[in-house]
Amino acid sequence: MTDLSTALSLAEVRLTPVLIADPPLLNTHGVHQPYTPRLIVEVVTADGITGVGETYGDAKYLALARELAAALPGRRVDGLNGLHALAARIPGSGAPESGVDVGGQRGVQTADKLRLSVVSGFEVACLDALGKALGLPVHALLGGKVRDAVEYSAYLFYRWAEHPGGAGQRDDWGAALDPAGVVEQARRFVRDYGFGSFKLKGGVFPPDEEIAAIRALAAAFPGRPLRLDPNGAWSVATSLYVARELGGVLEYLEDPTLGTAQMAEVAAATDVPLATNMCVTTFPEIPEAFAKGAVQVVLSDHHYWGGLLRTRELAAICRTFGVGLSMHSNTHTGISLAAMTHVAATVSDLDNACDSHYPWQTEDVITRRLPFEGGRIEVSDAPGLGVELDRERLEFLHRRWLDDDGTHRDRDDVAAMRVADPDWVMPAVPRW
Amino acid sequence: MTDLSTALSLAEVRLTPVLIADPPLLNTHGVHQPYTPRLIVEVVTADGITGVGETYGDAKYLALARELAAALPGRRVDGLNGLHALAARIPGSGAPESGVDVGGQRGVQTADKLRLSVVSGFEVACLDALGKALGLPVHALLGGKVRDAVEYSAYLFYRWAEHPGGAGQRDDWGAALDPAGVVEQARRFVRDYGFGSFKLKGGVFPPDEEIAAIRALAAAFPGRPLRLDPNGAWSVATSLYVARELGGVLEYLEDPTLGTAQMAEVAAATDVPLATNMCVTTFPEIPEAFAKGAVQVVLSDHHYWGGLLRTRELAAICRTFGVGLSMHSNTHTGISLAAMTHVAATVSDLDNACDSHYPWQTEDVITRRLPFEGGRIEVSDAPGLGVELDRERLEFLHRRWLDDDGTHRDRDDVAAMRVADPDWVMPAVPRW
Repeated sequence: MTDLSTALSLAEVRLTPVLIADPPLLNTHGVHQPYTPRLIVEVVTADGITGVGETYGDAKYLALARELAAALPGRRVDGLNGLHALAARIPGSGAPESGVDVGGQRGVQTADKLRLSVVSGFEVACLDALGKALGLPVHALLGGKVRDAVEYSAYLFYRWAEHPGGAGQRDDWGAALDPAGVVEQARRFVRDYGFGSFKLKGGVFPPDEEIAAIRALAAAFPGRPLRLDPNGAWSVATSLYVARELGGVLEYLEDPTLGTAQMAEVAAATDVPLATNMCVTTFPEIPEAFAKGAVQVVLSDHHYWGGLLRTRELAAICRTFGVGLSMHSNTHTGISLAAMTHVAATVSDLDNACDSHYPWQTEDVITRRLPFEGGRIEVSDAPGLGVELDRERLEFLHRRWLDDDGTHRDRDDVAAMRVADPDWVMPAVPRW
Repeated sequence: MTDLSTALSLAEVRLTPVLIADPPLLNTHGVHQPYTPRLIVEVVTADGITGVGETYGDAKYLALARELAAALPGRRVDGLNGLHALAARIPGSGAPESGVDVGGQRGVQTADKLRLSVVSGFEVACLDALGKALGLPVHALLGGKVRDAVEYSAYLFYRWAEHPGGAGQRDDWGAALDPAGVVEQARRFVRDYGFGSFKLKGGVFPPDEEIAAIRALAAAFPGRPLRLDPNGAWSVATSLYVARELGGVLEYLEDPTLGTAQMAEVAAATDVPLATNMCVTTFPEIPEAFAKGAVQVVLSDHHYWGGLLRTRELAAICRTFGVGLSMHSNTHTGISLAAMTHVAATVSDLDNACDSHYPWQTEDVITRRLPFEGGRIEVSDAPGLGVELDRERLEFLHRRWLDDDGTHRDRDDVAAMRVADPDWVMPAVPRW
């Protein structure tokens, strides 16, 4: 048996930005680009054990990740709490930054949050390496699983059949631009993956059309949890109109309007629970939002929140304040899905099915895709995350990133929409 | 190398109630008994690895611990999150219970809190065993230390030279019943242990006498952090009087008065920060207390809060809501001091020195007492907690428990005081 401190010592960090195919999924800002940047993080111990993690791959994330990667060799993969202080010491990583992230509907954008998102990729990679070195699954490094499988919801999107000009990859899902199309998409999700709850990304069409789509889903899948998420596209009045129309039907309404003040106004006037991955995406946003009763469910995202340990802290805060917890997802590979599944398995009161874009991502960087069965992902008991990098695929997707002319290296749904509609601009908010 | 699942499988749980010597330390309820009950928990894996933990040893804790111990064999020592659900399934462990714990100033008493206190002893024992099985210190199982030593404060008590009738053990500290005695005690704490901050257990004498003691400490140790803790003995008006008198001197005032409403009233009218281990001792008490600004520092206690993972959750909540964190202590052995030190080492923003009764406990169940150097305990990097049971001492202290006529099997400071003063009753609150 090797000496443990050698086995846990970080010898090398590899960063591989990739572009993965994304279908033409519509949201209130525009449409997903044909390719989305992600960053694959590998940490290698002195013993040659490799741990993998994943985070956003846009240029500013990549720049900070490179600095953090340079600071890591010589540290240990079990020094997870220390990653935050290390990252905070990188020049320029601490100052708050204003502005709205136009691409990903990722909520408030600050230097702190950027740093946490980058740290999360490294933390997951370290947990994977640590688990492999010890022979333990990641969930055991988080106190142990309390369930054997994690439930996910079907993530329904209005979408085109193909990208403008036929760019990117093709798929056989066809278009979904009305209630019938949405129901058809949902039926395939049920058939292929067994999902038992449904989330529709809204904010794309006038509210009455989206209300009709939710009603069609309710008719097709009676009693199933349904969610609608317009990414803050609505006014308070419109949000309340939708809440009234769909009162008996929705499990929750996600980010109907922007900001804590408006969310609180909506929440005060409806019994429909409000969920968010925009109004509360960082720890500093919690006190005011909870005090005002602005949100009833927080959709955690281990990237935003700074990793799996921090996600467990968020869960504890939500439990203490009587706020529900679920999970948000952005375009991601199987690495992040595995990470989400491990942490979700350890949280006792995760009462809502988690979101995942994963079924829309046909390209991956792992050798064996994680299968949904009955809408659930089984929690792996293999050492680490339980995934293995497919180096050929990684190289192929990295080559695509290298060859890109810059169009896809930062996710920009507004720019992608402009390819179809040259007059398209970022819609003013509230859009309706 | 042994199979890991054998190494982590729980084969046996041993519970050993002990009575450890306690000096005649005074508080507002009375005086510490000559002996205090503690429960030593040992978990033994199928491989023969033993992990140790410690919790309260009073009869009701022991009864629940026996039921939990019976349910554990066959489970794994890395199933920490699952301990809570397991304990909650024990009949009668979930119903709330009212009443005040008269012995230990332990704050609200509910069945939930009793259960968490019992679970904490098992959780620490499991972490110790897990660390030993893996070759990792407990702090590494909590995400890793962010400091190499943890600072403790000198825990000063008004005290008698000996117990009534000369019962129990003797020591050479002598009496401390006035400012000069308190300062003399503090000087010895500095000389022997190097402490750099001081807490005086108050609520024993009329407030002006305790104010004088704090002023004497401030004169003897200029610039050092000072704390006064009357365990809720004062009215709001008295609390504000003391806060005014000691405004420039105190680091914080601990539990001057009872309950969130009164603490909030005091907090609103003084700049002296209020700390607590009575008004907020469980997660359900947090929202109201934080909303009302009733406390500025929470003194965590991993026994109350349900173990080391839950203590980290409390730390995250405090950090998020801008509330300080420190650590409370009750009469304990080196096992709990080691556990406190490991978890404290992992919390980035533990800004206040922790409390510990440890210097008052001359009896221990470990082979090598944890030494304070410069008021600090070095964080062990040895596998597990880094302590070893002294089986002879354990047996000796257990024998004392077996031989006890019941007088000391439940801590009762009021009854202990009655030995000296047959007319003593639990003082009405507020006492001043």
